[in-house]
Amino acid sequence: MIQKIDHIGIAVNNLEASTQYFENALGLSCHGTEEVASQGVKTAFFEAGEVHIELLEPTSSDSPISKFLEKNGEGIHHIAFGTDDIEKQLSKASDAGIRLIHQTPIPGAAEKLVAFLHPKSTHGVLTEFCMPTKKA
Amino acid sequence: MIQKIDHIGIAVNNLEASTQYFENALGLSCHGTEEVASQGVKTAFFEAGEVHIELLEPTSSDSPISKFLEKNGEGIHHIAFGTDDIEKQLSKASDAGIRLIHQTPIPGAAEKLVAFLHPKSTHGVLTEFCMPTKKA
Repeated sequence: MIQKIDHIGIAVNNLEASTQYFENALGLSCHGTEEVASQGVKTAFFEAGEVHIELLEPTSSDSPISKFLEKNGEGIHHIAFGTDDIEKQLSKASDAGIRLIHQTPIPGAAEKLVAFLHPKSTHGVLTEFCMPTKKA
Repeated sequence: MIQKIDHIGIAVNNLEASTQYFENALGLSCHGTEEVASQGVKTAFFEAGEVHIELLEPTSSDSPISKFLEKNGEGIHHIAFGTDDIEKQLSKASDAGIRLIHQTPIPGAAEKLVAFLHPKSTHGVLTEFCMPTKKA
């Protein structure tokens, strides 16, 4: 089942300018930055209660975030729901007729398994499921 | 200070269809519905951990949600940060050069005080602050 909103991804043009906004205007603290070369993004992380906010700046023109920014400008890119059983969550969505981007979970950042639902099936909200990988 | 993400508002064309998606595909339960005539919207509420999800369907063509849907289609409309001092939060944002939609908080739903920041100042994310009203 869905336990919480794990994180919200926000597409931004410039990580530094957006970090300043989140720090100075909202008073949130940046907990770290990371470059994910495979996705063509640099990220900065913030916390608001149990939810992480991930700012996403593209590092290449073929990054999905570049395409999002070209089409929509800056704004919320996706919402990730934290679940304790990502396979079951995908089956449930599939059974309900939802188009899956990932039929099975793939490794994501922070040692999580992740899978996306297609926004055409989800009322315009690009939706991710994520689950911590089980430790041995 | 910001304590959590209080809620996420999602603009939808049809409350019933979107409620079915959140219930059947995500497995979340609808906790209630409300019509807010002053804003020209019907809403349905869901919970994911400490965050409420508010689906917003316009009930009139001059509702802000109608305008959003015409321009953007369905999708995330705003994020509301829960704070313990909304006046201080607004001052902080204003001092950082952020354009405020509300200079002082106004009464919102669920006995809260609310105020919005202008999305042109907030990297494309329509941002609300909200705070429970103090009980006598």
